Amino acid sequence: MLELELKKGSLFEKVLEATLDLVDQASVNCSSTGFSLRAMDTKLVAIVSLLFPSEVFERYRCDDDHSMDISIADMVEALRCANKDDVITIMADDYNGITLTFESPKKDIIAEYDLLFVDAESHCFDIPDLQDLDSKYQAIIRMPSAEFMHICKDLGSNCDDVVISVTKEDVTFCASGESESFRKIYRQNKTLDESEEATATHVDMREPVSLILDLSYMNSCAKLFALFDKVTICLSNTIPMMVEHKIKEKGYIRYFMAPKVEIEIEEEKEGKTENEEAGTEGNKTMQD
Amino acid sequence: MLELELKKGSLFEKVLEATLDLVDQASVNCSSTGFSLRAMDTKLVAIVSLLFPSEVFERYRCDDDHSMDISIADMVEALRCANKDDVITIMADDYNGITLTFESPKKDIIAEYDLLFVDAESHCFDIPDLQDLDSKYQAIIRMPSAEFMHICKDLGSNCDDVVISVTKEDVTFCASGESESFRKIYRQNKTLDESEEATATHVDMREPVSLILDLSYMNSCAKLFALFDKVTICLSNTIPMMVEHKIKEKGYIRYFMAPKVEIEIEEEKEGKTENEEAGTEGNKTMQD
Amino acid sequence: MLELELKKGSLFEKVLEATLDLVDQASVNCSSTGFSLRAMDTKLVAIVSLLFPSEVFERYRCDDDHSMDISIADMVEALRCANKDDVITIMADDYNGITLTFESPKKDIIAEYDLLFVDAESHCFDIPDLQDLDSKYQAIIRMPSAEFMHICKDLGSNCDDVVISVTKEDVTFCASGESESFRKIYRQNKTLDESEEATATHVDMREPVSLILDLSYMNSCAKLFALFDKVTICLSNTIPMMVEHKIKEKGYIRYFMAPKVEIEIEEEKEGKTENEEAGTEGNKTMQD
Repeated sequence: MLELELKKGSLFEKVLEATLDLVDQASVNCSSTGFSLRAMDTKLVAIVSLLFPSEVFERYRCDDDHSMDISIADMVEALRCANKDDVITIMADDYNGITLTFESPKKDIIAEYDLLFVDAESHCFDIPDLQDLDSKYQAIIRMPSAEFMHICKDLGSNCDDVVISVTKEDVTFCASGESESFRKIYRQNKTLDESEEATATHVDMREPVSLILDLSYMNSCAKLFALFDKVTICLSNTIPMMVEHKIKEKGYIRYFMAPKVEIEIEEEKEGKTENEEAGTEGNKTMQD
Repeated sequence: MLELELKKGSLFEKVLEATLDLVDQASVNCSSTGFSLRAMDTKLVAIVSLLFPSEVFERYRCDDDHSMDISIADMVEALRCANKDDVITIMADDYNGITLTFESPKKDIIAEYDLLFVDAESHCFDIPDLQDLDSKYQAIIRMPSAEFMHICKDLGSNCDDVVISVTKEDVTFCASGESESFRKIYRQNKTLDESEEATATHVDMREPVSLILDLSYMNSCAKLFALFDKVTICLSNTIPMMVEHKIKEKGYIRYFMAPKVEIEIEEEKEGKTENEEAGTEGNKTMQD
Repeated sequence: MLELELKKGSLFEKVLEATLDLVDQASVNCSSTGFSLRAMDTKLVAIVSLLFPSEVFERYRCDDDHSMDISIADMVEALRCANKDDVITIMADDYNGITLTFESPKKDIIAEYDLLFVDAESHCFDIPDLQDLDSKYQAIIRMPSAEFMHICKDLGSNCDDVVISVTKEDVTFCASGESESFRKIYRQNKTLDESEEATATHVDMREPVSLILDLSYMNSCAKLFALFDKVTICLSNTIPMMVEHKIKEKGYIRYFMAPKVEIEIEEEKEGKTENEEAGTEGNKTMQD
């Protein structure tokens, strides 16, 4: 028996809606501690993983662990129909599906949606163990999410890929189209006062990192994190990029994205013959 | 000689605009008492019938009765071009067409549209005699038009039909798609105070009624009545549904909609073998 | 060495954006006095010609004359990405392309766009010598640009052409579709007081003029001049229509449009057999 109660316009609703750019359905796992959801896009390039602790909900009851595959699209469409003051209840049984109930404050109007479970598209996907972020990621960027969204928009419709490069001095986002190229540079600025610090971009770098990422995934990612003020972007030369926002103490929203081709960062770049990888570029997948 | 004068943004203009979802052209009949218009959609499922009494217009002059077939689409497009303070005049002769004239307050700018009459698509359609509503309709629902629009939106894009069922206790709207089903229930609530009464849904039922209706027609209907605060929905198991709004004393806007398959309401439903009508479901037409 | 500095939302940016309806690329010529640009649409019907004097820019430096062909589309798309308080710099070299740089007030965020020059589509187009407007154009209309835009919208989607006719008494815009026709008449009104004069339409006519123009070009023209309060429309029976707005003392934005078929204006129109030109109607081009 799973029973959740929400308010209209809750973070839960907004996050589900924002994931629709990437995925239609998801695997849900509920326990007494919270509601977790994982979904991978059909091209196997990106994974959304989130944990909503039980405190996030108005009311949360989960007697036994529940695992189910749901249509996020149907769920979001149903949630959109709730009125501002409705009591929203989500119930699930073990076998058939989910029922969303919206009850008006006066209890004279009741809307009920029955949504069948969907067939799981059984991709086995492993999510990196995130116990020790610092040892996993070589560079961690913290920036206002509006700035992150801004970059994705600036890169525009003429480019497919973006190269993110982190050095001690700055973070650079580069993209090239047929007749134009674009660079956006965030310089480490030590002269900012306290109020400016809050909206500035910070980099915590242990090693230089450079990654090629697919711009369309960057966009769906930026849209998801636009729900929050700040975004944390974790970069590594060896494992997928992770963008994260924490929810309360134990909860989180994480977006993992496989890079296209990794670029080697070396001290002595000059004089080297260039790798002839351009022709074979492509997204790695979460199963690589 | 027919000559009408309107203000920009008049009810007349808004109603014509809202009927465009259903019909492109209409049969107009003008007499000294008012302007009446009837139009049936091309699938013969729904009819809009309206009577604007002469008082609705700024000025109304009709020497002889006029009958003509006009393009509502062209007329609405022309009316959209009038400015806020223009004097809008509609004139018709017996033979060719209609002329709309918009004159600026200073009379220095004049816009004139000549619209040819269109060829009548000669569907003979009878409109039920509405002298005695109570004997014709078994259930009459009065609800805020915003609520009516809300239901149509909630039913969403995944469903084709809606089942409206009226009992003593409540009115239920149901719809089913491939992987989801939806119910919205309006309970008779006797505990509302006066101010709440005004925005509540009321049912006046002599017999239980249950009808299957086409959702796309429900939508065009809801859009038309969204121009008003309240809507009156008249249901019968034997004749088309009628949705009505009265204008001044004698005028009205009526939307008739043929049901798909009627569902039999019986006292002893249990134990009966179900009718195998599912395969033959379809809209009745106004000519059935 | 060419180097310009702009503010976000400058007239320069807005004008470029508004020309996109007509043209994708343009020939630019820069000298110490200012920035001039000319572009012809692919059907050779209309030309945009503009001169921005150096005073229009925040900073303007041009050591030698520069001629180059640029993609307006790419340039506008890049300019859209600048932030409100960014310092926008446009630099060009002689050989490759243009670089746009946006620097944040704190200098910690820098965006750079490199845009390659485009291959010139070498239409040789002559622009009428405009030393003596009065001797070139038989009628000059001055009207609010909002009114000019209004006419183009009113003519709607059902018509391809518009006929502009100027007489001593009024200016008339006419258009005809299959089932409708439209006339908008601006009467010379001598009774207006001073404040009304400012927003009225004025005609300065030496000879009656009547021209057929392509409505889609009228629309792109109206959109461009919607950036300003007033528009000046210069008409002639022998040379392309010109619509103009002056910028500072020496600058201008001019839109030239070739007429379709010219209609002869004669004192004794009655009794004449009509020209059978209808079948051969078409846009003249700027090369005729």
